[in-house]
Formats: sequence, C-alpha cells, structure tokens
Amino acid sequence: MIRAAIVGASGYGGAELIRLLKAHPEVELVGLASRAYAGKPASAAWPQLLSGPDFAEVEDAVDEAEVVFLATPNGVAMDLAPRLLEDGKRVIDLSADFRLDPRVFEAWYGFPHRAPSLLKTARYGLVELHRRELAGARLVANPGCYVTAATLALAPVFAEGIVAEVLIAAASGVSGAGRGAEGTAFAETNEDFRPYKPAGRHRHTPEIEQNLGRVRAQGRWLSTWGPEDPVRLTFVPHLVPMTRGILVTAFVRLGRDLEEARLLELYRGFYDGEPFVRVGETLPRTKAVYGANAVRIALRRDARTGWWTVFAAIDNLVKGAAGQAVQNLNAVYGLNETHGLALEGLWP
Amino acid sequence: MIRAAIVGASGYGGAELIRLLKAHPEVELVGLASRAYAGKPASAAWPQLLSGPDFAEVEDAVDEAEVVFLATPNGVAMDLAPRLLEDGKRVIDLSADFRLDPRVFEAWYGFPHRAPSLLKTARYGLVELHRRELAGARLVANPGCYVTAATLALAPVFAEGIVAEVLIAAASGVSGAGRGAEGTAFAETNEDFRPYKPAGRHRHTPEIEQNLGRVRAQGRWLSTWGPEDPVRLTFVPHLVPMTRGILVTAFVRLGRDLEEARLLELYRGFYDGEPFVRVGETLPRTKAVYGANAVRIALRRDARTGWWTVFAAIDNLVKGAAGQAVQNLNAVYGLNETHGLALEGLWP
Amino acid sequence: MIRAAIVGASGYGGAELIRLLKAHPEVELVGLASRAYAGKPASAAWPQLLSGPDFAEVEDAVDEAEVVFLATPNGVAMDLAPRLLEDGKRVIDLSADFRLDPRVFEAWYGFPHRAPSLLKTARYGLVELHRRELAGARLVANPGCYVTAATLALAPVFAEGIVAEVLIAAASGVSGAGRGAEGTAFAETNEDFRPYKPAGRHRHTPEIEQNLGRVRAQGRWLSTWGPEDPVRLTFVPHLVPMTRGILVTAFVRLGRDLEEARLLELYRGFYDGEPFVRVGETLPRTKAVYGANAVRIALRRDARTGWWTVFAAIDNLVKGAAGQAVQNLNAVYGLNETHGLALEGLWP
Amino acid sequence: MIRAAIVGASGYGGAELIRLLKAHPEVELVGLASRAYAGKPASAAWPQLLSGPDFAEVEDAVDEAEVVFLATPNGVAMDLAPRLLEDGKRVIDLSADFRLDPRVFEAWYGFPHRAPSLLKTARYGLVELHRRELAGARLVANPGCYVTAATLALAPVFAEGIVAEVLIAAASGVSGAGRGAEGTAFAETNEDFRPYKPAGRHRHTPEIEQNLGRVRAQGRWLSTWGPEDPVRLTFVPHLVPMTRGILVTAFVRLGRDLEEARLLELYRGFYDGEPFVRVGETLPRTKAVYGANAVRIALRRDARTGWWTVFAAIDNLVKGAAGQAVQNLNAVYGLNETHGLALEGLWP
Repeated sequence: MIRAAIVGASGYGGAELIRLLKAHPEVELVGLASRAYAGKPASAAWPQLLSGPDFAEVEDAVDEAEVVFLATPNGVAMDLAPRLLEDGKRVIDLSADFRLDPRVFEAWYGFPHRAPSLLKTARYGLVELHRRELAGARLVANPGCYVTAATLALAPVFAEGIVAEVLIAAASGVSGAGRGAEGTAFAETNEDFRPYKPAGRHRHTPEIEQNLGRVRAQGRWLSTWGPEDPVRLTFVPHLVPMTRGILVTAFVRLGRDLEEARLLELYRGFYDGEPFVRVGETLPRTKAVYGANAVRIALRRDARTGWWTVFAAIDNLVKGAAGQAVQNLNAVYGLNETHGLALEGLWP
Repeated sequence: MIRAAIVGASGYGGAELIRLLKAHPEVELVGLASRAYAGKPASAAWPQLLSGPDFAEVEDAVDEAEVVFLATPNGVAMDLAPRLLEDGKRVIDLSADFRLDPRVFEAWYGFPHRAPSLLKTARYGLVELHRRELAGARLVANPGCYVTAATLALAPVFAEGIVAEVLIAAASGVSGAGRGAEGTAFAETNEDFRPYKPAGRHRHTPEIEQNLGRVRAQGRWLSTWGPEDPVRLTFVPHLVPMTRGILVTAFVRLGRDLEEARLLELYRGFYDGEPFVRVGETLPRTKAVYGANAVRIALRRDARTGWWTVFAAIDNLVKGAAGQAVQNLNAVYGLNETHGLALEGLWP
Repeated sequence: MIRAAIVGASGYGGAELIRLLKAHPEVELVGLASRAYAGKPASAAWPQLLSGPDFAEVEDAVDEAEVVFLATPNGVAMDLAPRLLEDGKRVIDLSADFRLDPRVFEAWYGFPHRAPSLLKTARYGLVELHRRELAGARLVANPGCYVTAATLALAPVFAEGIVAEVLIAAASGVSGAGRGAEGTAFAETNEDFRPYKPAGRHRHTPEIEQNLGRVRAQGRWLSTWGPEDPVRLTFVPHLVPMTRGILVTAFVRLGRDLEEARLLELYRGFYDGEPFVRVGETLPRTKAVYGANAVRIALRRDARTGWWTVFAAIDNLVKGAAGQAVQNLNAVYGLNETHGLALEGLWP
Repeated sequence: MIRAAIVGASGYGGAELIRLLKAHPEVELVGLASRAYAGKPASAAWPQLLSGPDFAEVEDAVDEAEVVFLATPNGVAMDLAPRLLEDGKRVIDLSADFRLDPRVFEAWYGFPHRAPSLLKTARYGLVELHRRELAGARLVANPGCYVTAATLALAPVFAEGIVAEVLIAAASGVSGAGRGAEGTAFAETNEDFRPYKPAGRHRHTPEIEQNLGRVRAQGRWLSTWGPEDPVRLTFVPHLVPMTRGILVTAFVRLGRDLEEARLLELYRGFYDGEPFVRVGETLPRTKAVYGANAVRIALRRDARTGWWTVFAAIDNLVKGAAGQAVQNLNAVYGLNETHGLALEGLWP
C-alpha cells in the first residue's frame, strides 16, 4: 500500500482527493492537513465522511506519507514541496506553482517564483500527453481544470500543425471557484450565467497556450521543459449555476480544408487507447461525466463559415483536479492508470 | 384601453404575455386561445394565475380584440395572421413566420412560406433598431430570443462598418426550449451544461445574420425590407440549468484598431436614450435582468490577441419574447415605450 | 407622494423593498442606508438596479423621509426607532424587535429589550388579522416569514376554537437566511435538503404561538396587545435548494369531527374578501407565488388517522417580508391595499 | 462471478443498478432489458455510459443471468418473476409487487395481485431488519424509497414499544418520480417546493405502516410474513428541486418520558454494527449521502411540547432503490454486505 497524505484537505480539491484515495485499492490515506481544522475529525469539514484520519498540522499529517498531495492555494507549494522532497517524499501539486515557466508565472500570478530551481524536477501531469515522462516522477504539477479540457480538446489539431486561430468559450460549475469563494452564494448564483475574467484576464490562459505550444513543437508526446512554439488565444470563462462540470467550446480555424469525418478520425487516432478520453459523435455535456475521470470530445464544422467547433466536457473536480492527481499517482507508481478511478459517472 | 388577445397562451411565451398584459395600464386582456385548454380557466394551465379570461378556441378568443399576440409554433401564424388582418386586427407574432426572407425561411425551416405576400406588410419588431417604422404597423414580427441579444450586442460595430469577423457563443435557460420540450426534465438538466445545434445548425443563425447585414447596409435605423449586406457568422448555443436568461458572448475581430474606452463610447452613443439598453463597464449576468425588459451590454478587448468580446444579457422570456412584444405594442400604438415593462428585475 | 427610506438596504429584504417601492405609484423612494455601502450607488450592492438613491449613512438617508422601513438585524430597530418616531416619522420594522412580549423576546433572542415602553405603540403588521388597528399606526412590526405562512394557515381553525394539537413542518428557500449567511454556498446547498433549528429551537416558534394564541382569545380581528390564550406547538424548518419561497405543512388535530368541504368553507369564509389570500382545492406550491404578495392555502384530511394537514405557500421575500411591509404601508396610509403589489407572480 | 441482468434498465433505478453492478467486484452484468431501447447500445439511453451490454428484449437479456433485477413499473414483476424463478433464477424486484399483503396491495394499487402464491416466497429486502432471513432468498422485494428512510428512522422506538403517535413529513428529489414523469420539467420544478399525495394518498403509507407494525410485533429482527401489529400514521411527501435525496422528518409522541441522550443511546444500540446506518448528533442532510448507500439519523426532543422529531436522510436512488438492491444481492449470496457499495458519497 502506498501511504498518502493530503495538505489543504479542507478545500473542494481535498474533499475529492479524500473520496478517491479512500477508495483506491493500492493507497492508504494516512494524513490530512488543514490549518483551520487541525485537531478535528475529518467529518468536521466534510459532512459526507464517516471515517478518515483526523486533520492535523502539516508536519504531523505528512509524517508517515511517502506521497503528498498538495491542494493548497497558489504560493504554498513552492515553499512546502522543497522540504517534502528533501524528506524523500513524492509530491503531486494541484496548485499552479509548478506548472509554468517562472517568468510567465510571475507575469500572471503577480509575485516571483520562490523555488525556480525545482521547476526542472517537475513533470506536468497531463497524463494523456506526458505519460512517457511521468513514471517515477518526484514532483508532479497537476494541470488546471479549464486547462485540462482545453488542451485535450485541441491537442490533436495542434499536433497536426494545422491550426490557424483559436478562441475558447468555457463554462464551469461553481465548485471551481473553491470553498468560500466570493460571489458564490446560492441565492445569487442560482438562475445566473455570467462571464468572468474574460479575454486575457484568466490565469489559465497562459497554461493552455504553453501546453498547445508544446504540442505544436513536440507532437504527440510531450516533455515538460522541452521545446515550445508560441501560441496566443482568447479565452473566456463563464460561471454556470451547477456544482460540478466544465465544458470547453473551442472555435478553431484550420489552415487546411478537412471533412468532418476526417477530423474525427484524426482525433480518434490521436487518443487511441486512452482510457479516459472518448471522442464521439454525440455532443459532450457535463452531466455525462459527473463524478468520473472522463473526457468527452466532439467536433463540428460550420460549413457556412469554415470555422470548426470542438467541445470537451470534464468534471472539474475529477479529471480537472483530484481524479487527474490520482491518475498521476498511478502513472508515477506504474499502476494500472484507471485504478481507483471511475470511467463513468452518476446519472441522473 | 386596448383590447388584446393571446393565441398560444398555454406556452411559456403566452404565460409571460399574460403577466405583462394584465399589468399594462393601457391594455385589457380579453381573450386567451389554446386548443389544449379551451373551455378551461386560465389557472388550469398556469398555477400562478388567480384570474384572467378562460381559454377558448381561437375565433372566440380573438373576437373582441383589436390586437392579437401570436405565441404559436412556427407555421401557425402564416395561416392565421391573414384572417386576423382582414378582420382589421393588428398582429404581433412571436414565432419565426414573418421574420425572414421567404427563401431563407424555407431553407432553414424546411417548408415553403404560405403567406409570402404578407411579408412586405410585416415590420421587424426590434424596436431599438426599427422604431421609426413601427408606429401604426399592422403586423409585427417579434425577434427571436438569441437574435435579440446577439443583434443588440453587435449592431454598433456593424453600423460603424468595422467588423471583420464574428463568432458567437450563447447560452440560454431551459424555458427557451418551450413547455414540454424533450430533454428538459429536471433530473437530466440539473447539473448539466451542454451545447446544442452548434455551428450553422440553429435557426436563429440566419436571423442574426440578416439583422446585422441590414445594419451594415442601412446604419443606425433599419427598414425591414430595405437593403442588406451579406454577413456570415458561426453561432453556438448552449443550455444552462436555470429557468430564464440568455447570455451572448460574441468574439469580434475589428478592421480598425480601437481602445476599449473608445469602443465603449461608440456603444453608448449608439444606444443613447434607449430606455431598455444599458452599456456598462460591469460584465452582464443573466440574474441582473431576471424578469425585466432589459439588455445589459459590456465589452472587453483581449490585448494579447486583438480580439474583442462583447457580452449581452437578457431575460429570454421578457426582452427575448413577451416583453419585447409588449414594447412593440407600445411602439405601434405610440404609447410610452416603457409602459407596463420593468426596467429592473428581481434580486435575488 | 409618500417619501420613504430604507435602512438596511443592502440585505435581501432591502433589495425587495427597493424593487417594490420604486414601482409603487404613491411612493417616492428618497433614501437608502447601509453602513457597508454608504457613499456608493445603489447598483454597487444590487446588480439589477439601473437607478435609485445612493447609499448613505442612516441620518442622511432618512432625513427627508416620512416613513422609514427598517430591514436591519435584530436589535438595531429598538435603538433606532425611538429617534425616528421622535422626529415624527413612521416606522415599519422588518426585524423581530417589536413583535414579541419583552419577556418572550429576551428568552428567545438572548438579550433584554431596550425599548419596552415603545412596544405598546407597535402594531403587529399581519394585515389580514390586524387591519382594523393599522390605519394611522406610527410603528409597525412586520411579521416573520415562517410566521406569516403558519399563522395564516392556522388562524381560521384557532378562531373557531377547535384545535387540539398542532405540529408544523416548514421549508424555506435560501434567501431566507439572508445575504452572506453561513452554510449557503451554492456548491454545498445545491442538491441538499436539510432541517435546521428544529423542535423548539427556531425563534419564529414563539411568534407563531403568540399569534395563534391571540386568535384563540380574540377571534377574527386582532388587537396587538390584547388578550392571548396559551398555545404550544412543535415547529421544524428546513432549507430548500431554491432562492425564494416558503411552504408550511401543518398537521392539525381538531377537537371536532368535520368534513373536508366544511373546513374548506370555513377557511373561505374566514378569508372572504382578502385580496392576497386564496384558499383553494389545488395544493399550494412555492413557484405559484414567486414574486407575488400572495398566500395560497389548501387543506386535506387524512381519513385513516383523523389528522388534518394544512398547506400554505408564500414568497418569503414578498408576503414574508418586503411585500407585507408595503401592504402595511398601504394599510397605515389608508391606500388601496394592493397598490404596488403583484397578486400573481412569474411563471416559469 | 455472479451473472446479473436488469429488466427495466432504461429507468433511473436501472441506470443506478448499471452503475453499481458494473463496479461490483463479484458481479458480471450480462444483460439489460428495455422494450423501448431493445437492440440499441446502453449509451443510447444513458449518456454517461461508455460500455455495457446492449439493450435486448427480456428473454434475451436474462438468458445467461442467474440473478435478475426487476426495475419495472408496478404490475410487471408479478407476471415476470414466476417464469424467472421457474428457470432457476433469483429475482430482486424493485417495484411494489411483492412488498405488501395482497389485500393491502389491491386496496392501494387498484388491481388484484396476480401471483399471490409467490408472496410467501418473497423476502422483504430491508436488510437492516430482515438480514436473518435473506441468505439464499430466491425472491426479494426491495423496499420503497420513502419507506426505507421512514422505517429505519422509526424502527428503534417501535421495537421498544413506546410509540403513541407518528406523523411524517418527507421530501424527495425529482428523480424519485421516475424518468419522464409528468410535472417534472426543469423550468416548472426549479424554484418550486410542493406537497403531493398528502395525508393518506401516497402508496408508501401502508408499506411504512406494515414495516413498523411488524417491528412492533416482532422486535429487532423481522420475518417477512410473521406477526404484525396495527399501525396507522399520516404521511405527507414533498417534491424538492434537486435530483437525488430523501429526507424524512418524523414527529413522534412516545408513551414514556425519555431524555435525549437516552433515546440516542437506544438508537445506537439498535443499529450497532450496521455498516450503512449512522445515528449521530448532527442533523442529517441529503447532500451528505449523495451517491452513497448510507442512512443518517438524528433525533431531537421538543422540550416545550414533549414531541420528538426523528430525521433520516438517504439517496433515494441508492439506499432507496438500487444500492439497497445490491445490498440484498450481497445478503442473498452471503457476500460482504458492503461489496460494491460506497459508504460515503460525493461532496460537493
């Protein structure tokens, strides 16, 4: 059994990690850290829990763990990971701390990176593209939620080198904003659909661009710090009155004329054998992946304008966060990649 | 008092018309027609109603009316309106029957128009652009819901002649699908965000194109059957788990370089004096217009890519349907345009 | 025009008062007070607003008003009302400060009343029962939301003197908890139905008992500080994942055997002529009164056990708070009681 | 591996059975029957599914199964079960067909039972009370959803013989009404809380009474057709705008005076060792059991009136239907009772 601990276990990403790790056949969950809840039982933060380690201070929570999941606010992992790695533990970080080039990080997050030398150690944990470098990784940067859906929606055409332009409209359930986020009270979120941080203002923008730039430069399989071509795109997220789910609607102008069946074939070939990705003819919807570590992709050509639309749906807390982190654990330890992860979710 | 009747009063557009017309200080609601409910009280279809005319067959319902609102499925008004007009009544049609050039209609709705000669009589009831030709109109074609939001979001830049390209992502509450629409059961719509009829498959596409083509050719004030320049755009609607509301997110590439403040000024100038349109710096959200005949517009430039995003929010049943129909009534009869219409909605 | 101001205008009760007072044909809304928003426009707190007085400190906000609505937390009005009354203003208080006998108040609210001598001046603003003493009142205590529904559901049988026992299960939309209330985040309220403060722990319990005790002692028309018989009942509120609405389900054992039609007749007689109360055969539902100052009541006898169930639905923010306050304004000033109030709400 | 088939696999109970049986470590799902979908893939009915048996006609679907789950409308299983049993298959029936005494069945379901002789074979599958007679059962009647929550909420006090009176208010998510149920459109269910079939009109009433009557007569462990004392109670269900979840709020008058801690102890003793039942001090809420086969119970005494309130929350599709059916499978086959069932659900 792999002994795992979670730091930041009183946030939504932490809650979903608890659920998945408790059910994982090869993992023993040995510690939960949360400053606010230290000393209290797991159920103090999470009404659904009947059992689990008590919350503790970080040092105690991670003491017996060999792998530590960091579900902490941005800026925490860069201070914490160095110590954990020195202690010989592996780290899977769900924050943005190890995802970006340090100059890009500073430009978008507003403060300089405090552990830039660690970045070379980090592997970017989008398993579908980085699987070949993840086995044995000591530090994994788990991708952003929108980033996961957008990158997987667009990687096949970027790998093919045929993208002329991309614009992305995306929408997320409210849990994506995190526990206690401002502006997410039920009475003012219900019956409301709204854009936020649009058009170059959301921090997932450079992460999507970086990923697609690497695909453009490297093709099917990526090396985290390998070559990257420049990509610029417009990204507009929206908030949906639902708890879970992300849908990405990407508008794509291709440099080459293709039929719909041909592009579908290209996508299916690209993701051939990927257990969590399904490219289909049915349009994706968030409910179809609720609770599952699944990605559903479909595409449509607008015959009248020549623009393509590519759709991808995920559960933001599973494939967009905790599920993908568990997938990374599986990849790092060489386990069956689907261990402890549902391919199909709940309906209705 | 203007005596009004509603045909198709057992659909959502009809329900909202009942609410607005009952509260209108210059209107007396004299008849409700619905085949399914004929002979029953208004409350048989609508639990919120305490009073109102009983439902009747069409002939009885419209008998005493001088203006008839048609909230019927596409294809009904083209048979019904000729008779009503012959009887000297005015008609405000909420369906698609009198909105489009007959060739465009046939191409998108799948059957030939059966009253093409009437089309010349029809005035397109987007009051903010067609006000000058609506006074005294005998037949008004009330615009589509998405069309209203999209046209108003984009008219100022089309009038300026500076649009190079447009893509539209839009999202609607479930009432837009109509009463009893397939795929709208609560248990399968809750926690679901999904695209539908994307990329050249939704019938509001040609209506948006027609409107913007007229603005491009005619400028600020439109004549329904006046000149029209060709416009083609990609339109992708989505379904949101909420009852009311439409948000349009338009991606726009302009042919000329502008600053954000300058475009904001252009928009504000364009809509100067319009009672229902507010161009602001705050991003629109559907909840802010819930129950009101209001349009909220904002715009943002993506400095990194040069693309603009324009956002517009409406209540699909009010400004997107029944409220706009009442606004048309006011325009036709030369009343204060805001009579019987709320500028501000409910919150929360 | 009656010049009105609202203190506590940045809470949900305040928002609904703004909506109703702006639309009231006899009222001019001259001031909004909110400590948090003083100096800012009304739209800073409320995205739906296009116009309205700026927020101000209390003294400035109420300066020109002749009637002041207090939508403040419990304990504020008892300090503020004396000054306002001294200045010759009328006060309609939406908090609990002037609703209860001071000993009962202290027992349930945990601190002694600081203006007990004012209580004699206060009139309890449940117009359907207190109408005869409200004309010209200087200080009105607007009833609690659950209290309004429960009292109106049960007054007819208490007036008849035939109640042996009562238990109440009630459910409220989330807006009832107030803006920023703990435990009302969308992601943790959606898909959740839960009881709270059950069985003698919710502060509306003694207010319901007081009202029904007065009905038992006084009959159809009540005097606020008149005689009161003792009533004890069990009250269990629940939270519903919706924004607005209260439904009361009262279980009643009657001391006399009655047929359903007979009790229905008794209820209809009791509320004969009441514009906002509808006793019907259809079971009430909260959606049917959304946005309206309406009360819907129905009753059913369980022939197998002899227990009666009485159901009442209201919009907690309208008939349960702001609408009722406006109804009180109308009663105090001798206006048509329905002025500025919708009898029917929005659907869907 | 136990080969299982599902008849009625295109309803919500069927969908949840598919999810649970596919994940069950000892079960192979070999057939899905649905008249409407026969010949189509599982994903034709259920968007979340990536794989699974194709839908087939009943005979084909059950051919290779040794145990058949019937998730069919009431009245189907009584015709189908006899044939399946003759073929040597075991049957777990989720409908009402084998739950009730045939006279009670006819009185409440409106038609005579067509397989009364089979009833003696049936075991009532509320495992927490019937475990001792379920091993090896050939025909199991899976309890109703409200019935499960209500019976478990009240069994301890009925076993103790101290109940004088019971009234039940209950609330369910919309999935309880079944796929395609009338009155469950999103736009007319959102923002609505409503009672339905109250006070002796809902068919779960006699089933709750029967269960509690058996507990009263037999005590802790029940025999399906053993002695039963008469119990009569008032039951009022409500519809909540959420997809899943049932909360029962039971008002109980006890014949003996008890302290809260004492009754809590009695409940905990009664359910000692039950893996799925948790009696706690925290009030239950439906979200805390979302997706889990869990029951949460708490109780409160109203010191002012002497009435007790007992609360129980379940997921209506899991412990209230499919999860309980799998629990029955485990009990029948002597497997670990928690196999394939989550004790904890998703949050948020």
